[in-house]
Amino acid sequence: MADIILIALGGNAIKQADEKGSSEEQFKNCYKTTAYISNIIKNLSPEDRLVITHGNGPQVGNLMVQQKAAQDIVPAHPMDVVGAMTQGQIGYMLQQTLMNHFKEQRINKSVCAVLNQVLVDRNDPEFEGENASKPVGNFLTAEEARELKNKQPDYIIKKVKPNGERCWRRVVPSPDPISNLDGEVINKLVDAGVVVIASGGGGIPVLEDENGQLKGVEAVIDKDLAGERLAEIIGANILFVLTDVEKAKINFGQPDEQELGKITYEAARKYYEEGQFLAGSMGPKVMACLRFIENGGEKAIISSLDKVLEAYRGETGTIIEK
Amino acid sequence: MADIILIALGGNAIKQADEKGSSEEQFKNCYKTTAYISNIIKNLSPEDRLVITHGNGPQVGNLMVQQKAAQDIVPAHPMDVVGAMTQGQIGYMLQQTLMNHFKEQRINKSVCAVLNQVLVDRNDPEFEGENASKPVGNFLTAEEARELKNKQPDYIIKKVKPNGERCWRRVVPSPDPISNLDGEVINKLVDAGVVVIASGGGGIPVLEDENGQLKGVEAVIDKDLAGERLAEIIGANILFVLTDVEKAKINFGQPDEQELGKITYEAARKYYEEGQFLAGSMGPKVMACLRFIENGGEKAIISSLDKVLEAYRGETGTIIEK
Repeated sequence: MADIILIALGGNAIKQADEKGSSEEQFKNCYKTTAYISNIIKNLSPEDRLVITHGNGPQVGNLMVQQKAAQDIVPAHPMDVVGAMTQGQIGYMLQQTLMNHFKEQRINKSVCAVLNQVLVDRNDPEFEGENASKPVGNFLTAEEARELKNKQPDYIIKKVKPNGERCWRRVVPSPDPISNLDGEVINKLVDAGVVVIASGGGGIPVLEDENGQLKGVEAVIDKDLAGERLAEIIGANILFVLTDVEKAKINFGQPDEQELGKITYEAARKYYEEGQFLAGSMGPKVMACLRFIENGGEKAIISSLDKVLEAYRGETGTIIEK
Repeated sequence: MADIILIALGGNAIKQADEKGSSEEQFKNCYKTTAYISNIIKNLSPEDRLVITHGNGPQVGNLMVQQKAAQDIVPAHPMDVVGAMTQGQIGYMLQQTLMNHFKEQRINKSVCAVLNQVLVDRNDPEFEGENASKPVGNFLTAEEARELKNKQPDYIIKKVKPNGERCWRRVVPSPDPISNLDGEVINKLVDAGVVVIASGGGGIPVLEDENGQLKGVEAVIDKDLAGERLAEIIGANILFVLTDVEKAKINFGQPDEQELGKITYEAARKYYEEGQFLAGSMGPKVMACLRFIENGGEKAIISSLDKVLEAYRGETGTIIEK
């Protein structure tokens, strides 16, 4: 049986935390990242298929800073458009660097980065009142937070750290992805053997309004949960959720802290329900894995980029199986 | 015989000259634009195919202003990355609004916007010395021009207007597009009946370096010339170059000014060689049409967006035929 693999890249695959985010730095990181992906592809058979998704947090942050700095001259764009712009930026960088590895290694495969809208429910609880949970943009002082709220009364601004000078941030809704609006087209490309880059940053968040029209929304979809939806659509049997650790852990920070290797769906579900995985961090990653198995996936793997081949071979990583 | 049509949209299809360029304005314009496209599609047979390309000048200008305003905090990106970001922005807006027309009118067609690299020759004369010809960014005073040149010694800054306070601008190379690097994938989508949005802003300009590696370059490719290359690749028989006039003119501004209707390739070529069409305006549009016919195209049409259906039916527009 051929493998159909979806790889969700972590944030550090494109921009390191200590970098400012110049194009040069990001191309260098992407080149390193796509070397691992190219290496996986060399180990696949011609019938196997691969789709890549990625985060966009730091790129969104930088673009929002730029938009704010010029806001008196040029209108700033809402989150859906900012998401589309970063899909453009990152999709291009990943595509070009992967194409370069293919050229070097004489791998005869096409790579395509598609702009990608993901549908959310306009009645998602994240859109209600102060429920929004995804911090975006800079950390603010209490004073700056008040100023921003005065200027943009519809913004939700929350204290996201218990103490320190800058502990306030704007938060936006992080609604659950319902479906991938470009799934059919992506499927055609995957069937044709193209390596597709899609659903970047969790996809461009759109909802259906009361007239059934698509409309972008000020929100950020979790990229691993959106990646899982895409994995379903392409009929993937393997989901990779890559991050900066080789394995997920339970009893994190406790004396009995323990790395998770191969575990069953049931065990993973139990740990998840015990609250073993941090919300906004390992939590949604494990949730994406659980959903993947529930929806017919064979194997969901949490590991780090530099271990992706070993994890594919079953030698490391947290591997959740049916 | 089925029609394969490539439509190159003019700048006013997305942002009007008197607008600041808010997302709201641009979505409204795109919705109007894609209504015309949807209307064309209703008049096509199921075997016909349609691909859309578009400019990105005003969006690049706005993003450059934003990047400059924040340059001390966040690194600005080079033109290739800026091009990719605007492909993301505009591709998304065109895709979503076209999908909405399809939903309203129960047209069962997929729309896909792909990020798209276009190859240029690293020995293109536009890269030599002060040859660069494409103005980008704001008009500057002589003083500002000097300052910018001091800060960015590798920038080429030219006087682009004979007089007035602000007559200087940065210029970047506008190399000739050689080939579309995503042509094969776009072709697969077109064959499958997908309406594809590609080659936006003339494509992301890349060259092959001395090691054969792809590398983005500080340049802007003419979108009509890049659109023509794409038209060749998809085997289009009809090329639409849309702009703000219904027909091209000869003897422009003279007492014997004359609109061009249906003309032969030879006549169009003769007018072009006489210098009847302005460089940087109607010139490259006519050049794209000439190349299209030379490369096997059947009909190249210059007209305005609101006349696109009439022009398709042969009732108006400048129609250049073999």
